[in-house]
Amino acid sequence: MDKQQLFENIQRKKSFLCVGLDTDVNKIPEHLFDESEDPIFEFNKAIIDATADLCVAYKPNLAFYESLGLEGWDVLERTVDYIRTNYPDQFIIADAKRGDIGNTSAMYARTFFGNMNFDAVTVAPYMGEDSVSPFLTYEGKWVIVLALTSNKGAFDFQFIPSAETGERLFETVLKTSSKWGNNENMMYVVGATKAEMLGDIRKIVPDHFLLVPGIGAQGGSLQEVAKHGMNAQCGLLVNSSRQIIYASSEHDFAQKARAEAQKVQQEMAGLLDELLK
Amino acid sequence: MDKQQLFENIQRKKSFLCVGLDTDVNKIPEHLFDESEDPIFEFNKAIIDATADLCVAYKPNLAFYESLGLEGWDVLERTVDYIRTNYPDQFIIADAKRGDIGNTSAMYARTFFGNMNFDAVTVAPYMGEDSVSPFLTYEGKWVIVLALTSNKGAFDFQFIPSAETGERLFETVLKTSSKWGNNENMMYVVGATKAEMLGDIRKIVPDHFLLVPGIGAQGGSLQEVAKHGMNAQCGLLVNSSRQIIYASSEHDFAQKARAEAQKVQQEMAGLLDELLK
Repeated sequence: MDKQQLFENIQRKKSFLCVGLDTDVNKIPEHLFDESEDPIFEFNKAIIDATADLCVAYKPNLAFYESLGLEGWDVLERTVDYIRTNYPDQFIIADAKRGDIGNTSAMYARTFFGNMNFDAVTVAPYMGEDSVSPFLTYEGKWVIVLALTSNKGAFDFQFIPSAETGERLFETVLKTSSKWGNNENMMYVVGATKAEMLGDIRKIVPDHFLLVPGIGAQGGSLQEVAKHGMNAQCGLLVNSSRQIIYASSEHDFAQKARAEAQKVQQEMAGLLDELLK
Repeated sequence: MDKQQLFENIQRKKSFLCVGLDTDVNKIPEHLFDESEDPIFEFNKAIIDATADLCVAYKPNLAFYESLGLEGWDVLERTVDYIRTNYPDQFIIADAKRGDIGNTSAMYARTFFGNMNFDAVTVAPYMGEDSVSPFLTYEGKWVIVLALTSNKGAFDFQFIPSAETGERLFETVLKTSSKWGNNENMMYVVGATKAEMLGDIRKIVPDHFLLVPGIGAQGGSLQEVAKHGMNAQCGLLVNSSRQIIYASSEHDFAQKARAEAQKVQQEMAGLLDELLK
């Protein structure tokens, strides 16, 4: 999917919501285990069917699937296929936080883009250009580089100022890595818990899309994110995982997930109206 | 496996070699595909049987297994089981370069330590303490944090000096992260292509084990690594992947792999003799 298509989906759906599929076998409704031999996939399917018209992206978190071994990997593959087949306008992100030397990153790229048909994969920047560039060789695919994350540990290294440039590490990551690709094949992860930082970030990457985790369970404010981070093509994908997918653990879990997604989407529609009027 | 056991294995085998199982379906001998329905596992098994007395560790590179989908994940699990069952004195490293927010890193830890019984997993430091600490809660298991990698991209960020301390980023990573655990549950990845840096690194982490990739195909020198990096308990695991496992693509691939491993082991024996005399 290219940038223009993504923006058109955002305009049409009046949403820049990404639903995080952090599907945890210990948190999904118990009745699914009684009713299905394939409860994890059934959960994903129900969540996707209930939210697909309200969001523009899904983001399976690889850790949750890997922790289930072969079964998890199989559910992941079928989930991507299910979205791709039934909701072809969705942007599908492998939240994998990969990154290794060139020949190894090339293998990861093959996994997520060649084998599984994700649109994007999240990548950690620590190992530099040759750990990221193999992901950029796939036409129409995206790399989403970690810049400023939403967790407490973000303060350990990401804010260290450089003695050479005065820039904080996350700013150097943005400046340097933005030269490896362009705003048609790269995005950045920017945590919503630091929404005021989005202004600084927009000075460096005005036109890139930003994937913003941390709305909801992690505590960020959507209005603040939009105020500081939105650009002329929206430029934001805001992720919510737990608050939506675990809105209920009863038989109504999918309806409740839809209601939560709708709340976010309606707020987004208002923010987009401001942008598009 | 604890540090003392690892050191005892190194002394007994006169080796600190780690064999990297970067098993690439496009590089393993073609005859294996004719002779077996399980060629990737058969390759690993043959390499392991041919080298187990010459090395103290194996390091499957996750990317190579993930790129094969379900089959690859299955081969990975059986490879770990095979080593664990037949060569219980081996230290098994998941070269996964993971790292995410706390609840997600906890899932990765469960995958590699709870489900698969690896001894250690490589982790990227960019997201800070809460991305690493979930791996430290498993008794007898290890985190191996990326400090200074062996690739060209290492120069993009890892050498940036801090305006606050003057330390380069990899030094700050070492200083800060070494407080999260101790030298009984943490190691560091330090590329052999920058062996002279090992002296600087030893000033910060004198007692930690260092996992050193980059011998062989990536061009580092074993003697230089030992000179600058060895400590009283050896403190080194030196990895070689391609140079050993792809020494031949003919029927003699396992013997040739053994011969390559033996060359390295014999050089290591000489270096250890110096240390232990």
